[in-house]
Amino acid sequence: MKISINRQYFIEQLNHCLKAISPRTTMPILNGIKIDVKDDHLLLTGSDSEISIEITIPTEINNEEILEIKETGSVVLSGRFFVDIIKKLSGNFVDLETNDMFQTKITASKSEFNLSGNDPDQYPLLPEVKDEESLVLPASVLKTIVNQTNFAVSTSETRPVLTGVNWQFNDDGISFTATDSHRLALRRLFGTKFNAGHSTAIIPGKSLSELNKIISDSDAEVEVHFSQNQVLFSYGHMRFISRLLEGNYPDTSRLFPENNETKVTVNNSDFYHAIDRVSLLAREGGNNVIRMSVSNNNVELSSNSPEVGTVNEDINTQEIEGEDLKISFNSKYMMDALKAINDEDVTIEFYGTMRPFTLKASESDEVVQLILPIRTY
Amino acid sequence: MKISINRQYFIEQLNHCLKAISPRTTMPILNGIKIDVKDDHLLLTGSDSEISIEITIPTEINNEEILEIKETGSVVLSGRFFVDIIKKLSGNFVDLETNDMFQTKITASKSEFNLSGNDPDQYPLLPEVKDEESLVLPASVLKTIVNQTNFAVSTSETRPVLTGVNWQFNDDGISFTATDSHRLALRRLFGTKFNAGHSTAIIPGKSLSELNKIISDSDAEVEVHFSQNQVLFSYGHMRFISRLLEGNYPDTSRLFPENNETKVTVNNSDFYHAIDRVSLLAREGGNNVIRMSVSNNNVELSSNSPEVGTVNEDINTQEIEGEDLKISFNSKYMMDALKAINDEDVTIEFYGTMRPFTLKASESDEVVQLILPIRTY
Repeated sequence: MKISINRQYFIEQLNHCLKAISPRTTMPILNGIKIDVKDDHLLLTGSDSEISIEITIPTEINNEEILEIKETGSVVLSGRFFVDIIKKLSGNFVDLETNDMFQTKITASKSEFNLSGNDPDQYPLLPEVKDEESLVLPASVLKTIVNQTNFAVSTSETRPVLTGVNWQFNDDGISFTATDSHRLALRRLFGTKFNAGHSTAIIPGKSLSELNKIISDSDAEVEVHFSQNQVLFSYGHMRFISRLLEGNYPDTSRLFPENNETKVTVNNSDFYHAIDRVSLLAREGGNNVIRMSVSNNNVELSSNSPEVGTVNEDINTQEIEGEDLKISFNSKYMMDALKAINDEDVTIEFYGTMRPFTLKASESDEVVQLILPIRTY
Repeated sequence: MKISINRQYFIEQLNHCLKAISPRTTMPILNGIKIDVKDDHLLLTGSDSEISIEITIPTEINNEEILEIKETGSVVLSGRFFVDIIKKLSGNFVDLETNDMFQTKITASKSEFNLSGNDPDQYPLLPEVKDEESLVLPASVLKTIVNQTNFAVSTSETRPVLTGVNWQFNDDGISFTATDSHRLALRRLFGTKFNAGHSTAIIPGKSLSELNKIISDSDAEVEVHFSQNQVLFSYGHMRFISRLLEGNYPDTSRLFPENNETKVTVNNSDFYHAIDRVSLLAREGGNNVIRMSVSNNNVELSSNSPEVGTVNEDINTQEIEGEDLKISFNSKYMMDALKAINDEDVTIEFYGTMRPFTLKASESDEVVQLILPIRTY
């Protein structure tokens, strides 16, 4: 292969590709980025066998030449190191030329690197995902959905399905659920129909968080395709492929209690900062537990740690309904849940000291966050 | 004590004070910040016994009240944790009130913290440094001097004096020297007289690097006072005290060779970036050694690593004089030295393959950097 390529554009695409590359891979060749030069485009591939990212670089973008193809061919080059070189070179264009032994000459301005490359035939084949039966979402919507659910996936491998987000396709839309069994995040997308022949797919949380680093907060379309074991996100010149998690996701619908006993509506940002302050002492005391009491139309947060001290915080509420309550919870879970609710006012519904409570926007059911309390009272 | 203080101003001063506090202190009380409320000012003290920082907060700055003193007194409060609380509170002012048991109530808006404090009488006394015989430097000059020398101090404790910068007072000015015995940084300040009754002081590199984080790149004056074992930098409302290193600094004047064999003048920034690129491969190969060859009025940098590949870089030179040369050196030392020379053009003088070489600005002797080569040819 022999090409000349716009250095800045190349760096951006290589950086996306690097997101699929893990330094802890068991297959050394997966430390590399595969470069395939075809007749009229270049294909970059990075993979850690869980996630694969494929990027197509055309010869022109907006009538500006970004890639000149002098000779087709393929090579695999050491990922991070290769990208570092391209970044530190000077000049607008960089030339790559590979010989039969996959030795690759990289030249720009007065610099010349000669790198040992690897045989692209050693690179594993990517899974095939057919481009049929696709769901189309604006990138910004997908990004928000991931932000509102992904934080709640489990980080423990004891129940692997809980390390993913469950996408469930219903008659009235799609629901996205993540839970680590201490808290649960639910997002609903009403009205988006998708008849994929199957009703549910569990996408690894790690894959979604890498995807979210790449897609921009824009109207650009993301096509989502499912096969038996894989999901493909097709986004501009990029194909992002992740394996799906096998197994049955637990039925979480029964977790949501009915008929609240106490209902409090607070300003999201004020409440978030109050929790943040009170949690300072909770953390210093060695746990993240803070207490909340609702009595006489008054909400108070508190925490104490025998060695360090105590903290009390009065909360301004918009509305309080129902019975008095004392409850304790993990402040981090509460802060995560508040961040996931894109609304000025948040309604928290309690069902008694020992039962899970829920948070949602005061005027929408799109996002529901559920948190299990901690027994301290 | 009982005060009300401007929160933002307090945070800035506390952050400065934290720079003296080390989490690895052997005296638990030194994890705290001492607050002394006097009749007309407040004194903050932080120390790790090597460095101490004392900040005076007056009641008014520019006719604006920043501190209201309701009752004098003292307390020691857990450093980082206390500062985190002040940062996360809301409102412009925060109130502090300490009782006889050093319990301290911190209130702002609807938040109330009650912290266990420590008896200030347990806090060690700071060393006394008299405010006589002072040297006065603009903050920006002091900052530059530290940047041009401090990187070269030794990080190894085998020869403790080498972990400091040697300040030497001569008839024609002051010279500042740092060396880790592989490279040396020398800065001269001509014309600044200082008759302190002693001719040399070795200031720990760590102290200088903390000092540099605090002083701004401005014309503000820094007064420097020396006592037998301590140095005091007096800067605005702050007193920064460091111990001096004991022992004799080696005589480094004999290290500088005379009569160069080869002399090359290059553009500082271009040469720096070339070294940076070539060092990519040197690092990947497991060491930082790069080669430089001067022949036929041509300068070339190169590095190779059997597994990874090779790199060559032609250098644009402004001027080459003297004999051909092949020499190898540590690329990090070279990059550090180039950064320390605030000049567009750098002159490098070589005295043969195995002898130290020097770098300086092409038109000034203020900064001289010396590097020992590595034997590879």
